[in-house]
Amino acid sequence: MATQKGSVQNFFEDFRMGQVFDCPTPRVLTDADRVAYIQHTGDRTPRFCNAQGLIHPLIVFHTVLGQTVRQISLNAKANLGYAEMRWHTPVHVGDEIRTTAQIVGLKENSSGETGIVYVKTTGLNQRGEVVLEYCRWAMVKKNRKDVTPYLHEPIVPTLAPLVAADQLVPHPSDPFDARQTGGKFFFEDYAVGERILHQDGVTVNSSDHMSFTRLYQNSARVHFDALLMNGQPLVYGGLPLSIGYAQSFNGIENRTGISAINAGTHANPAYQGDTLYSFTDVLQKADFFPSMGVLRLRMVVVKNEDPAATGQFAIKVRNPNTNKEEYNDRVVLDLDYWEPVARRMRG
Amino acid sequence: MATQKGSVQNFFEDFRMGQVFDCPTPRVLTDADRVAYIQHTGDRTPRFCNAQGLIHPLIVFHTVLGQTVRQISLNAKANLGYAEMRWHTPVHVGDEIRTTAQIVGLKENSSGETGIVYVKTTGLNQRGEVVLEYCRWAMVKKNRKDVTPYLHEPIVPTLAPLVAADQLVPHPSDPFDARQTGGKFFFEDYAVGERILHQDGVTVNSSDHMSFTRLYQNSARVHFDALLMNGQPLVYGGLPLSIGYAQSFNGIENRTGISAINAGTHANPAYQGDTLYSFTDVLQKADFFPSMGVLRLRMVVVKNEDPAATGQFAIKVRNPNTNKEEYNDRVVLDLDYWEPVARRMRG
Amino acid sequence: MATQKGSVQNFFEDFRMGQVFDCPTPRVLTDADRVAYIQHTGDRTPRFCNAQGLIHPLIVFHTVLGQTVRQISLNAKANLGYAEMRWHTPVHVGDEIRTTAQIVGLKENSSGETGIVYVKTTGLNQRGEVVLEYCRWAMVKKNRKDVTPYLHEPIVPTLAPLVAADQLVPHPSDPFDARQTGGKFFFEDYAVGERILHQDGVTVNSSDHMSFTRLYQNSARVHFDALLMNGQPLVYGGLPLSIGYAQSFNGIENRTGISAINAGTHANPAYQGDTLYSFTDVLQKADFFPSMGVLRLRMVVVKNEDPAATGQFAIKVRNPNTNKEEYNDRVVLDLDYWEPVARRMRG
Repeated sequence: MATQKGSVQNFFEDFRMGQVFDCPTPRVLTDADRVAYIQHTGDRTPRFCNAQGLIHPLIVFHTVLGQTVRQISLNAKANLGYAEMRWHTPVHVGDEIRTTAQIVGLKENSSGETGIVYVKTTGLNQRGEVVLEYCRWAMVKKNRKDVTPYLHEPIVPTLAPLVAADQLVPHPSDPFDARQTGGKFFFEDYAVGERILHQDGVTVNSSDHMSFTRLYQNSARVHFDALLMNGQPLVYGGLPLSIGYAQSFNGIENRTGISAINAGTHANPAYQGDTLYSFTDVLQKADFFPSMGVLRLRMVVVKNEDPAATGQFAIKVRNPNTNKEEYNDRVVLDLDYWEPVARRMRG
Repeated sequence: MATQKGSVQNFFEDFRMGQVFDCPTPRVLTDADRVAYIQHTGDRTPRFCNAQGLIHPLIVFHTVLGQTVRQISLNAKANLGYAEMRWHTPVHVGDEIRTTAQIVGLKENSSGETGIVYVKTTGLNQRGEVVLEYCRWAMVKKNRKDVTPYLHEPIVPTLAPLVAADQLVPHPSDPFDARQTGGKFFFEDYAVGERILHQDGVTVNSSDHMSFTRLYQNSARVHFDALLMNGQPLVYGGLPLSIGYAQSFNGIENRTGISAINAGTHANPAYQGDTLYSFTDVLQKADFFPSMGVLRLRMVVVKNEDPAATGQFAIKVRNPNTNKEEYNDRVVLDLDYWEPVARRMRG
Repeated sequence: MATQKGSVQNFFEDFRMGQVFDCPTPRVLTDADRVAYIQHTGDRTPRFCNAQGLIHPLIVFHTVLGQTVRQISLNAKANLGYAEMRWHTPVHVGDEIRTTAQIVGLKENSSGETGIVYVKTTGLNQRGEVVLEYCRWAMVKKNRKDVTPYLHEPIVPTLAPLVAADQLVPHPSDPFDARQTGGKFFFEDYAVGERILHQDGVTVNSSDHMSFTRLYQNSARVHFDALLMNGQPLVYGGLPLSIGYAQSFNGIENRTGISAINAGTHANPAYQGDTLYSFTDVLQKADFFPSMGVLRLRMVVVKNEDPAATGQFAIKVRNPNTNKEEYNDRVVLDLDYWEPVARRMRG
């Protein structure tokens, strides 16, 4: 007598505009989360591995996103993008994170088999302070055949193409010491238009990606079940993001930790056995506070081809059939973000 | 000049009735053990990942069992079963666990090559309080050909088929908040006879199971040495137990952590590459304390077939040759346990 | 417009005698580093897993070595050896480690393609106390064709073949309790010339070695990039060292933690899939302080052949072509070190 207590969670037709989810399973973040993150990514940014006790902003991101998976994206076919992502109050060892999610857009696809769900996501600490907020959208499967109102009357939120530099949250009192980073380049040294090749390649193994995904209590089946996925479980898109960000320490050592994501696209999936490389284009520079400027960066994570080998890499290519610009099928992630970087002359 | 200092430990003929082992290597359990456990299992039970600082009862189990491996089961061919397992004093971050083991039964098998060793195991904290006690039995290899007294006069302990509900150890003052669990079902909602399908499948990779087993300092060679095992190291039976229990959060969210194991059988081995699923049958309900009842549950972990796909799964099947009921060869673990579950109306 | 901010770091011709590097990225070591180490190695030495809060000396070693990788050995072809390695102030949970490295020898190889770099390495805690010092030498690639002065005038430091027993740093006040180790053998029981077979075999999986290497922020590409390495990323030599040391607890249980390394040779590489075994020869015995003696041990880590199977294993064999003694190609690591071991009669 099988009952339905083991939930299959929400399909596209189950969501309603304005619906708010209190996401279960608050999580305390500790030294162990710092070490587990280093073990998975090799990140060397000093403030996230020294005695300062700060939690890496991407740990906060994975924790918050993981908390929304069951209610929002357990039945997602693809995680499509992010916008308006800003980190607020820094998270320290011992803080407990919980998350709320609100449906801000719904659009059924013409196939009748999926729809796009737009979710405003807010991560909070134990004092109720916002630590992270963002909008993401995912393609979620339908479970029933009948058409929803969102096929003919889709609701698509207006999302800012860019977090304005003056909306970034500064932390001028956080100690920063360039001797800890080994970086020779400061805010003044970066030029709009330059490309930084990060040089490192990392092959993703099956245990690597599954244990990283479990670490954040993200239980989407596509990442874990080789039988369901015909032997090819999908790598959680957050892993290439974190590997690319760890690689990009090489060349941006005097960074203090990602501050906002303007846009992010998981352009192509990654699987066990893929080798990931990355490079960063400098898009924009802005003042931030006296000792720091902020760089708008485009980090691109590439699979199975080292962009540093040739120094040339086309992020998008023209599809001869459609005559449209499309992502190079080597591109795994295209991320547009703001990164505070120390100035050479401080004070 | 090779000496015998590197021990091969005890074989069946080395055990004596009543023998007591103080198991070496006490272990302090910390935040890092909580995080490592989440990384391996994806467990989402709130009290074991929030700021409450409780250590998961199954971490305690693996730690205690791991401490007995060298003296008791380094030469085991199979870990056969458990009975009379009860958790007592809860374990918190910072507690140090040590273990004693006493031989309570010995039975040589007619093959003359193995025997069954019954062990009463007791885990203690740094104050000497019992945190866990249980009996397990394992099939241990003989090293010498001569017959032991336990062939013709086996000593088999009388084990209770069931821990009585009134022997479970309640913790009524531990805070519980159903908003943290996301669970819609409470003690009142479960019916004897119902089956809960947990929906998730997890493929076990080689690093996953070996690092989980090492984490608990379990050094039985069969789990680690691919050369010895013809390329097929055996997955430590504790991993399917923990994966199944983590999966079973889906449908039993308002649980507070396994309280006793009545019986457990590792029905078939698991290997790297196997995908694990689970379901739970509700066997019995009992009162516990005002805000909690206790469910007697049968959790079955299955490999390489999703029992939720059909909703039908026969735990045992009739062997046409022997006309006996035997475990379906998909069944990895059959566990009969008590789980406290919050009542809807509290206080 | 690719710029050179993403560094490819130093090649042989970039080093100068006497050059000093302050290695970036200080690292705080915590409970989580203790647990991660156990997860990777299964080490059971009590003082590194009990409530005493000591950090394993080999964690300190990996941390310090990892901190030197980018500036010293990112372009290494092979890590050749160690000498004069001594641990000083013990490291406890919460200590922050940083490292300096000084070039003390340079010798270009006749091939013109590589050179040997000798580096004096010093690990320090947050109070500036030395925690570890050693000399290592690595074969580093050249990037330019022109000959360096170190081809014809190599500078090779004079290294002591042995750390004298009276130079070891004693810690007589550290608590030691033989009941925690389970060891039956004490300092008095070991004889020069005896061989201890450690009995355990451990197969190294791809995730195992990569995540261990990342844990110590060692980012040498040869360990991670399967594309670069034709599908065979090289296992970081520190993993066989730690696995061998963990295995050697079996037979040397009353040890208190490696105190010095006289010499270490990575004789042959290890790859994913190799199974590692180890044995230890007792080379020398010396007094240390009243309750401890110190053993000079030769630990040999072997791949894909269990030296305990025959009890015979030739560390070196005569090459019939050259008539020279060479390492058996099963030998992965040959380590000569000092280990304090408790005396039976204490006080």
